[in-house]
Amino acid sequence: MKRPLYTFAPLLLAAGLAAPAAEAPAPRSRPPAVVSPELQADGHVAFRLQAPKASEVVLNGQWPDGRAPMAKDASGVWSVTVGPVEPGVWEYNFQVDGLSMIDPGNPAIKPMRAPRTSILHLPGNPPLIHDFQDVPHGVVRQHTYRSKSLGRLRELAVYTPPSYDQQRDTRFPALYLQHGSGDNQATWVVHGKAHWILDNLIAQGRARPMVVVMMDGHAAIGGGPAGFQDNTAAFQRDLLEDVMPFVEASYRVKADAASRGIVGLSMGGGQSLTIGLNHLERFAWVGGFSASAPSKDAVAAALEDPAATNQKLKLLWIGCGKNDFLLQRNQAFVALLADNNIRHEWQLTDGAHSWPVWRKYLAELAPKLFR
Amino acid sequence: MKRPLYTFAPLLLAAGLAAPAAEAPAPRSRPPAVVSPELQADGHVAFRLQAPKASEVVLNGQWPDGRAPMAKDASGVWSVTVGPVEPGVWEYNFQVDGLSMIDPGNPAIKPMRAPRTSILHLPGNPPLIHDFQDVPHGVVRQHTYRSKSLGRLRELAVYTPPSYDQQRDTRFPALYLQHGSGDNQATWVVHGKAHWILDNLIAQGRARPMVVVMMDGHAAIGGGPAGFQDNTAAFQRDLLEDVMPFVEASYRVKADAASRGIVGLSMGGGQSLTIGLNHLERFAWVGGFSASAPSKDAVAAALEDPAATNQKLKLLWIGCGKNDFLLQRNQAFVALLADNNIRHEWQLTDGAHSWPVWRKYLAELAPKLFR
Repeated sequence: MKRPLYTFAPLLLAAGLAAPAAEAPAPRSRPPAVVSPELQADGHVAFRLQAPKASEVVLNGQWPDGRAPMAKDASGVWSVTVGPVEPGVWEYNFQVDGLSMIDPGNPAIKPMRAPRTSILHLPGNPPLIHDFQDVPHGVVRQHTYRSKSLGRLRELAVYTPPSYDQQRDTRFPALYLQHGSGDNQATWVVHGKAHWILDNLIAQGRARPMVVVMMDGHAAIGGGPAGFQDNTAAFQRDLLEDVMPFVEASYRVKADAASRGIVGLSMGGGQSLTIGLNHLERFAWVGGFSASAPSKDAVAAALEDPAATNQKLKLLWIGCGKNDFLLQRNQAFVALLADNNIRHEWQLTDGAHSWPVWRKYLAELAPKLFR
Repeated sequence: MKRPLYTFAPLLLAAGLAAPAAEAPAPRSRPPAVVSPELQADGHVAFRLQAPKASEVVLNGQWPDGRAPMAKDASGVWSVTVGPVEPGVWEYNFQVDGLSMIDPGNPAIKPMRAPRTSILHLPGNPPLIHDFQDVPHGVVRQHTYRSKSLGRLRELAVYTPPSYDQQRDTRFPALYLQHGSGDNQATWVVHGKAHWILDNLIAQGRARPMVVVMMDGHAAIGGGPAGFQDNTAAFQRDLLEDVMPFVEASYRVKADAASRGIVGLSMGGGQSLTIGLNHLERFAWVGGFSASAPSKDAVAAALEDPAATNQKLKLLWIGCGKNDFLLQRNQAFVALLADNNIRHEWQLTDGAHSWPVWRKYLAELAPKLFR
């Protein structure tokens, strides 16, 4: 390296690197105008938003009785104090004259296709299964890849367990874990705390160390039932042709069906049940949480020869909450499995179509996997 | 594993796992009400926001002439089409009756302490140095750790270069890369595209493969000049006592000063220059981008014996834009270095206090490091 004594070089960087001369000032970084959320010693939580011109601001929280009108002070700051709020990872947002928005005082945002939701994480004492605990921790790795099957850039998150970087000669089982229709590949970690759930279960000796692969479930554009099927088909191509080969080349994972699981929630539950039951040569562990459960036609191949299907399946796990709007669909799917003598485990639980339920399902299911 | 033929078990999960009976419905996931941003074939971009009750909505974009009033249609959707917008990674937000907010149609959000900014990434053709290109890619790894020096949970992001996972017997140099006061540990990747800048430079043979460590620069609470110094001191403790030992135990990095760099922007530039110049036994490569440059007193130790300082320093790099509000402070710092015969490289460039400048600085500086 050359080391000039002084380089007083008031020169532009090379032309290709010069900033546009007319560049406008960036929206300025600055500390929050108000503190929000503010956790108080007694478990109450204060929420604040500076919006002097708004006519009505409402706090919409996921915890029990979480909806609360906010009041404006003379400086234009809306606020409300609620609680005590139970420990949990809760969603909330502000409705400003009917417009739902994140809390701009809070850097914790639920990863979504249409982001309107902030995260209030109140750890338990003692800590809950999804809380960070003082145990060995795995790592979450972010990849961007060009999907050949879909012809565009995609994102991927991969959890490796605490022992992964030490046990260099060990190969691990792999769980492909899908999110719901509002989410993306980051949601199971940032909001679902899948990494901490696994860390804690592994530390307790309750789950086997495993690699967890979290894809973006939105593979095709378009809505409605047809769009849903198109999306599952596109997602399957990306999974089988791009992601699994990438993961199996890049990570020390076992590549047999008994060492692979596919599980998801809501839309991702539909994807997991459909793809898993049609590819039992690849996945012996299949699960759906509050799933957009597939039709009979979509899983016809697995129903044809129940003995063969049951022989390949290590576990087919279905869970749904009593207050879930997809309960009937899950009950119908479970009845279909029973009518066709397909072995499965069915958990009807408390809860609605929501992340508190799905965190518990992961904590319930993970210990059963790869045994 | 036990495999019951049927487990029709309409039972609650174990008591500790049951959902709160009174759990409120979550804010519902749903597709965006409107499409925003929408990139059109001719380089124009349409922005939309559904806000029927708002009186005024303004688009505030970072690109040249990026401020534009939006108009409301009969369905309550505000929109504006602008451009063509030049390729780049641009910040923007909506100002809804004076309240700055992210675009709820866009999942790409700039990681900030007070998140109010969305990201519009328009790749160049040919691709720019910060664009994803079809070259070998590194990995970004996310860690949460309990900082012993600060007594709380902290986040950390670590980039490993493309060759890291293959060259198992190689140790790599490490760059500690800091963000500005509005940002956090995720900003250099999500918004700065540091990982792609490094991938591209390494693929071109222009930069040496290196590990990049990105900490959360907000280590202490409190504002103003005193708060800034307190924060730098707290950040230094976390860096030296927690993060560097963790990184050097967990990653295959070289642990000598000639293989360590510390560089940052704005607040993080102040941290990097202050900590680097006071710890030349640890960092031989030091840099500040648009830095909150330290006072004479804060770097007195390095000024005392210029020959010793110059002997330890491999490179001291200072860059600032002509339209940066910290220009005078940087010029004063550079004059201080000159007056004290401290060897350095000074780049006065076009641009303001903004990320387009800092991406270019990283692309300019990285090739000089660890030579």
